[in-house]
Amino acid sequence: MPEATSPRDTTLAKDLPSHPFDIDADSDKLREECGVFGVVGVTEASNFIALGLHALQHRGQEAGGIVTYDETSGFNQARRMGLVRDNFTSADMMAMLPGEVGIGHVRYSTAGHKGQTAIRDVQPFFGEFSMGGAAIAHNGNITNAIALRKELIERGSIFQSSSDSECIIHLMARSMGRTIPDRMEEALRKVEGAFSVVAMTRSKLIGCRDPLGVRPLVLGKLGDGWVLASETCALDIVGADLIREIEPGEMVVISAETGVQSHFPFRRAKSRFCIFEHVYFSRPDSILGGRSVYETREAIGRELAKESPVDADLVCPVPDSGTPAAIGFSLESGIPYAMGIIRNQYMGRTFIEPSEQIRNMGVRLKLNVNRALIRGKRVILVDDSVVRGTTSQKIKEMILEAGAAEVHFRIASPPTQWPCFYGVDTPEREKLLAARMTEDEMRDHLGVDSLKFISIDGLYRAVGQSGGRDAKSPQYCDACFTGEYPITPTDMIERGFKTKVAAE
Amino acid sequence: MPEATSPRDTTLAKDLPSHPFDIDADSDKLREECGVFGVVGVTEASNFIALGLHALQHRGQEAGGIVTYDETSGFNQARRMGLVRDNFTSADMMAMLPGEVGIGHVRYSTAGHKGQTAIRDVQPFFGEFSMGGAAIAHNGNITNAIALRKELIERGSIFQSSSDSECIIHLMARSMGRTIPDRMEEALRKVEGAFSVVAMTRSKLIGCRDPLGVRPLVLGKLGDGWVLASETCALDIVGADLIREIEPGEMVVISAETGVQSHFPFRRAKSRFCIFEHVYFSRPDSILGGRSVYETREAIGRELAKESPVDADLVCPVPDSGTPAAIGFSLESGIPYAMGIIRNQYMGRTFIEPSEQIRNMGVRLKLNVNRALIRGKRVILVDDSVVRGTTSQKIKEMILEAGAAEVHFRIASPPTQWPCFYGVDTPEREKLLAARMTEDEMRDHLGVDSLKFISIDGLYRAVGQSGGRDAKSPQYCDACFTGEYPITPTDMIERGFKTKVAAE
Amino acid sequence: MPEATSPRDTTLAKDLPSHPFDIDADSDKLREECGVFGVVGVTEASNFIALGLHALQHRGQEAGGIVTYDETSGFNQARRMGLVRDNFTSADMMAMLPGEVGIGHVRYSTAGHKGQTAIRDVQPFFGEFSMGGAAIAHNGNITNAIALRKELIERGSIFQSSSDSECIIHLMARSMGRTIPDRMEEALRKVEGAFSVVAMTRSKLIGCRDPLGVRPLVLGKLGDGWVLASETCALDIVGADLIREIEPGEMVVISAETGVQSHFPFRRAKSRFCIFEHVYFSRPDSILGGRSVYETREAIGRELAKESPVDADLVCPVPDSGTPAAIGFSLESGIPYAMGIIRNQYMGRTFIEPSEQIRNMGVRLKLNVNRALIRGKRVILVDDSVVRGTTSQKIKEMILEAGAAEVHFRIASPPTQWPCFYGVDTPEREKLLAARMTEDEMRDHLGVDSLKFISIDGLYRAVGQSGGRDAKSPQYCDACFTGEYPITPTDMIERGFKTKVAAE
Amino acid sequence: MPEATSPRDTTLAKDLPSHPFDIDADSDKLREECGVFGVVGVTEASNFIALGLHALQHRGQEAGGIVTYDETSGFNQARRMGLVRDNFTSADMMAMLPGEVGIGHVRYSTAGHKGQTAIRDVQPFFGEFSMGGAAIAHNGNITNAIALRKELIERGSIFQSSSDSECIIHLMARSMGRTIPDRMEEALRKVEGAFSVVAMTRSKLIGCRDPLGVRPLVLGKLGDGWVLASETCALDIVGADLIREIEPGEMVVISAETGVQSHFPFRRAKSRFCIFEHVYFSRPDSILGGRSVYETREAIGRELAKESPVDADLVCPVPDSGTPAAIGFSLESGIPYAMGIIRNQYMGRTFIEPSEQIRNMGVRLKLNVNRALIRGKRVILVDDSVVRGTTSQKIKEMILEAGAAEVHFRIASPPTQWPCFYGVDTPEREKLLAARMTEDEMRDHLGVDSLKFISIDGLYRAVGQSGGRDAKSPQYCDACFTGEYPITPTDMIERGFKTKVAAE
Repeated sequence: MPEATSPRDTTLAKDLPSHPFDIDADSDKLREECGVFGVVGVTEASNFIALGLHALQHRGQEAGGIVTYDETSGFNQARRMGLVRDNFTSADMMAMLPGEVGIGHVRYSTAGHKGQTAIRDVQPFFGEFSMGGAAIAHNGNITNAIALRKELIERGSIFQSSSDSECIIHLMARSMGRTIPDRMEEALRKVEGAFSVVAMTRSKLIGCRDPLGVRPLVLGKLGDGWVLASETCALDIVGADLIREIEPGEMVVISAETGVQSHFPFRRAKSRFCIFEHVYFSRPDSILGGRSVYETREAIGRELAKESPVDADLVCPVPDSGTPAAIGFSLESGIPYAMGIIRNQYMGRTFIEPSEQIRNMGVRLKLNVNRALIRGKRVILVDDSVVRGTTSQKIKEMILEAGAAEVHFRIASPPTQWPCFYGVDTPEREKLLAARMTEDEMRDHLGVDSLKFISIDGLYRAVGQSGGRDAKSPQYCDACFTGEYPITPTDMIERGFKTKVAAE
Repeated sequence: MPEATSPRDTTLAKDLPSHPFDIDADSDKLREECGVFGVVGVTEASNFIALGLHALQHRGQEAGGIVTYDETSGFNQARRMGLVRDNFTSADMMAMLPGEVGIGHVRYSTAGHKGQTAIRDVQPFFGEFSMGGAAIAHNGNITNAIALRKELIERGSIFQSSSDSECIIHLMARSMGRTIPDRMEEALRKVEGAFSVVAMTRSKLIGCRDPLGVRPLVLGKLGDGWVLASETCALDIVGADLIREIEPGEMVVISAETGVQSHFPFRRAKSRFCIFEHVYFSRPDSILGGRSVYETREAIGRELAKESPVDADLVCPVPDSGTPAAIGFSLESGIPYAMGIIRNQYMGRTFIEPSEQIRNMGVRLKLNVNRALIRGKRVILVDDSVVRGTTSQKIKEMILEAGAAEVHFRIASPPTQWPCFYGVDTPEREKLLAARMTEDEMRDHLGVDSLKFISIDGLYRAVGQSGGRDAKSPQYCDACFTGEYPITPTDMIERGFKTKVAAE
Repeated sequence: MPEATSPRDTTLAKDLPSHPFDIDADSDKLREECGVFGVVGVTEASNFIALGLHALQHRGQEAGGIVTYDETSGFNQARRMGLVRDNFTSADMMAMLPGEVGIGHVRYSTAGHKGQTAIRDVQPFFGEFSMGGAAIAHNGNITNAIALRKELIERGSIFQSSSDSECIIHLMARSMGRTIPDRMEEALRKVEGAFSVVAMTRSKLIGCRDPLGVRPLVLGKLGDGWVLASETCALDIVGADLIREIEPGEMVVISAETGVQSHFPFRRAKSRFCIFEHVYFSRPDSILGGRSVYETREAIGRELAKESPVDADLVCPVPDSGTPAAIGFSLESGIPYAMGIIRNQYMGRTFIEPSEQIRNMGVRLKLNVNRALIRGKRVILVDDSVVRGTTSQKIKEMILEAGAAEVHFRIASPPTQWPCFYGVDTPEREKLLAARMTEDEMRDHLGVDSLKFISIDGLYRAVGQSGGRDAKSPQYCDACFTGEYPITPTDMIERGFKTKVAAE
Repeated sequence: MPEATSPRDTTLAKDLPSHPFDIDADSDKLREECGVFGVVGVTEASNFIALGLHALQHRGQEAGGIVTYDETSGFNQARRMGLVRDNFTSADMMAMLPGEVGIGHVRYSTAGHKGQTAIRDVQPFFGEFSMGGAAIAHNGNITNAIALRKELIERGSIFQSSSDSECIIHLMARSMGRTIPDRMEEALRKVEGAFSVVAMTRSKLIGCRDPLGVRPLVLGKLGDGWVLASETCALDIVGADLIREIEPGEMVVISAETGVQSHFPFRRAKSRFCIFEHVYFSRPDSILGGRSVYETREAIGRELAKESPVDADLVCPVPDSGTPAAIGFSLESGIPYAMGIIRNQYMGRTFIEPSEQIRNMGVRLKLNVNRALIRGKRVILVDDSVVRGTTSQKIKEMILEAGAAEVHFRIASPPTQWPCFYGVDTPEREKLLAARMTEDEMRDHLGVDSLKFISIDGLYRAVGQSGGRDAKSPQYCDACFTGEYPITPTDMIERGFKTKVAAE
């Protein structure tokens, strides 16, 4: 995260709370920071981008942006705080974004100003080069962004945002490449970290994944045109057919005329896709590696039931992310599945400056226990992960207060012990419950009858690696569980972060 | 519905779309029109009312209102279009609604101007009488409102809204009763229809249900104070204990000092509670008649599995309302439960003036099929009801397009053949699919492999009537299924509606 | 002003500051509370009403409303907080207000909730009677409103606003008259006070002035249609020709077909038009009694120069209301006229919740002294009136700080010693500087070299009464200067106000 | 104006009309594009900046921005569309802009996207350099901006706005200067055109005027701190004392500790201050060259009366800008001054998407003739300038329609024949009435009895040059009247503009 000498921007303070208080029950989740979507060769491209971003909204709810290009009006851009459905669906807005090529982005924000995304940090970013304009949208995190930014500033670049992604456009501006794809290639070769990028020129759509392929990116066909998207669920909503995943280290340059041109500009490396995409980030109806995410999560639940069985009356998910694993646990164990906790659908992510009394309600605003169902029962609660443990605590209290006889937590991921530096918002290591406690200590801390995480091998089996994790050459990035970072987190080490090796 | 000579009110047209286009996948549901909540004897009452209304938001999303009374500022009132969490949670708002007694209301709107609720139609309604002010909030529908309104106007009353509920306050104004509860009693005796009412004076909270008890109303204890609410889930959120249901025909007058005074001002009648509250309207975590609504719905699913079994690979709910019945069906049949359809959580009720292309997406904006899971499978889809059949059609298409081998619909309610006149928004009879077709015709119309509704007796068994429906004296109001209206729909007959007897 | 048991309405609190802080330099002026406008027999009537209200905006800036009637859509209504140009000029809004007949109202608010006009207090008011609907807009004040309201409530009327004007519509509802004009006549006969009313039915425009004709109302011809307006400047803006003033005690019923039908329903009385309309309320380009208001004000300045000459270098107006009188003073005295004080055109009426430092700037935000011009000069400052004296004080300080050698105040009205109860917002008597001090004491209090008010006879001469005021039967209402109230202020006496007779 | 390959930005389209329709009566005026204000060494600097910008609002109404620096929060920035009083006065906003040093800017917009200022074009601009951040606000126009921009882009700069002023910050980024003032000096030496710049670092306030001093900039003392402002009226509002004007070609670097350090980084040149600042742009209460602008304008009126006398009954200003000259004309000629045209104070700059009928009202929405006063009179109308002549035409029609016997126009500036390229929004040359017609032709075109402009020598005399204009070395920039451009308009010549020499 760059040193913020750049000004706090209050441009949106009129419309948005200056100090939002987050009382979301999901606040104890890791958060993916971005979703990207691009399209070329279809009329009224912005409509499809809006739909695609709506389907990717779970990857970023703070803000969104769309850029399109049209012969008559040139490049057109709209960036907004808030949800896609609230900003990008009106006929008026679509009319302001004409053209057959365009890209879009939804953002949570990890780097940049946390919790107070300024409009200038909202992507896509645009740059005007001597050969024409280009826009770029980025999912991931650049691990040497601070060093790059410092160097670029010394050489005369003016940064307009606090986003790490802005480095890419400045590197492109400095490149001597003759075409925009050439410049993008050169820029991305200087960038370390995880990235799935979509970009556009006046006529081309460009996609690229980092050499390890940490973040997802898929290619789809839509009539005579083409689509790039973070997940397949975004292809479904626009009616596009899934062609294939963009490969790790691959760059594709696509136009309606020439189709998809692929090349591999980086040194080849073994794939290390983020395993947490399977556990939590991706939507259950998306397809990763040929298999529905839902089925993988159900398989995780089955593995959990095999690894850590317990005698009980009901298996209940912590809604909504624990649901598929809870179903799997129930199917494997034969213990009936039930909705012991009900979620209020009318909950937004935050309440705006609520009164003291309402703030204190916390998780109750979102979840309610099905009291008549739970009373006297031995309940297995299945959740996807434990981060700080704050929500788990409150849920346990609600369940016991409702009269449950026993509470058993089963967690669909191994203990989260290490922060992610590849595009996921994780608390500092000290705040991760599993970094400070053993499984038994966590059980006692939460005051539940039992607490079990799936093993790392169990998780690998569930995602389809029947032999479990290859410890010598792990098939996925699982740094959050193991501390083995496949890409050196340069900036963070500079700032004092101790890796596992250093820590030991 | 009264003849609207009263002006179209454009007071909110600046903020709200003048012609909202509803592309909600839930648009083919019956809609409860209201939820009510009241509290007396607790400090900062408005906080509790806001929380209670938030928990009741599923009963009405178009608008909400709160009235409180405080010695210093007198009666205070706020009425707003939109969701409780967007309007009624800020510290500023709560500060404008001081006091220890208050009532609130959330509204969908059946009577009044459909689809364009004006702010003046938003409850609670307030009236100033010679003995002081009173506010009233109403869940239900007055079946002789047109006649009452006409008479009141002839006698000099000025109506400010197009709501049927406003009659009550004018009847109270005309009453010679010496106290406000007396006037309310007198007013309600002139009113026909279904009503669960909460009202307030400077110091008292009043609750009343119509003689048949069609709509729910429960009493809770909150510290030294008391709460009235449409459902128990609203007691849970404020931490109140459920004392009991208000009985059909009962009026309670409650103050902190005197506690709950109960009497029965109407001629006693046999209870005819709305059976559709069990099927769809109430939240699954609410308790009706001592049993969790969730369990009742699971039981409906079990009954369905017994009545209409079918060989298949998966039982999938149409989210979210079909979920408990689908779980019950799976538990009874042994066929695995799975989430074959995924709901986009970031969908609001409507998209504001969307572009043509986005509008055409319809149900896809909200639901996506879990394609990798469904492909080649025989799927049982469990839904709560079929109204017009429009959404069922689209869901079937999505499922088949995703490659399902067979599609079997199982519906957790009997065929909906008759409109409701007791506070539920139903289409005209001709638009109800089941009013025009037999079960087999509907199956063919929808083009599915099988379609089965639960029987009326099966439904009664699931709600706990082991002997099924007592045809001579039905235990519930089930007019929407049977056409047997327990209260004569005077206004509608006047307007040409033909009852079953008349129709036959 | 009625006892407010009716609820404080926070309906607009989201958009408007709950406690606006008024730092307007005009805050020390008396304020007219309303302007009315009506039209019949022209297509797209709402456009003309919007224009007319815009021209009358100086008579009320807090809120405005329009009602129209159209065969297809019935009565249509829009009421808004804020300025006409911000609310009532868009094509969208005009489309929502179709029809060839309509009325409109701009409001400051005297009765009702001061300083926090609620949307429900915004006129026109609408009532539905057995023979159809009617809307009414009122300029003036009903002096027996509290008594009327109490009686109406006892008889079962439900008031929706805290406005005194709402009494009229309830009296109409209670009337046995067979037509709406009949009912309005009957209602107005029960009303005491000052009123210029415009009203409408489905096809007719109605206008009426109280027997003394305290508030203005003029009739214009617009193509084949007719216009009623508070002032002639509103005829000018729509291009209507001035026909004549509606006479005191006259009621006109106008339709496109029948033209203007006039009658005099009240006992005839001698006219007592408000003399302050000449001094300050009306716009200088309006015509009152056949003469431009500007010319009258210039004549006031000439009279002042004759009555209270002083040797000086410059005559400067306190902008903008003192300008015509200052010009007159200069023309009569031969002392050069100059703009010694400059007004910031970008000042609104209030700054919303300003910071402490900005609030303290007070009058400086609006006015600045022309320092280079004023330095070393003997300056005559001409202002229209002195109410509390607070602004005069600040202006004097600014002028002296800028280096003026002498400051002489000349006031274009006699000392304001009594509150107005006929539709003008006046402070309580104790707050009127002239009620507590003699002219000399005021001069010393303000610390100026001289201070002179025009005499009451001088003022009468300036408005065209060459013989001055007829003390036995004054030609105007001048109660604010003389304490001689032509209509008994019943409600206020009830509340303890002491008239001159009682006080002496 | 740079080639816009940069995207159309729709960021504000939600809040602002995409295609505002300007029906302002002032639309036929030349428009100054900017006002600047800066302060150092006072607590809560943002309050003073807001006040100063409010006083300078006449120099730019489309948007405004403030940047401050505070040890704790770093640089803070807020940029908004709309008026200062609507955006920059709340306590909340001021709290977001802490610190003792800051600068602000109000903008109309000449370069950049005309008529649709995007938020990213709103100044101040901020840049982060290796030695720290700096913000800059610019009044004027860079005449070689297109060439500079092209070169900067080729060398790798990413432009974020379409504003010519952004060049300065990129030139600073490219500079090798060791301090920010050094870099600014180097940057400004590469810039051609007219500029009055205020800038800031963490601790310093910087001001600079171009070598000819075309745009104004003054220095004031405020307690222990210092102020820079476009005009002295902005010193008055904050209570600062005028110290002196910044000299042409001077750069001042100011801090609380070191006071004002002055140097002259550019080659010295003879001053060519914009003479139109005297005629129209500056506020009448500002002081230019030791004399009040008001007095200069009054002197212009006197000169006009001497040069072009006419026998008439009344001298009337076209409000508000013609007022001082009309007063001067009256004083010199002895013909009575009168307000023959009244301005509606409640007019904003534009009506938002008005209906057809309202749009057609045009100037009538803002101005009304004082009919009763004007009828039968011979009227001299004094206006400040004639640009396209459109408004003059309409005013003449209104005056004649009101019954004036004769209409004589007297214009307080010479014929405007040439566009300004130094920071004023002028129509293309072909649209300037005086570029196409002689004085007599214009008289006939407007259909008035006489039309006279002040002579160029008369204007010079009025501003204090008793000998008139020095044709060999003019004392002012008067290019708009004479076509003699003191700075070559490079970009415009590139784009085909023909100078007087080239044209002849």
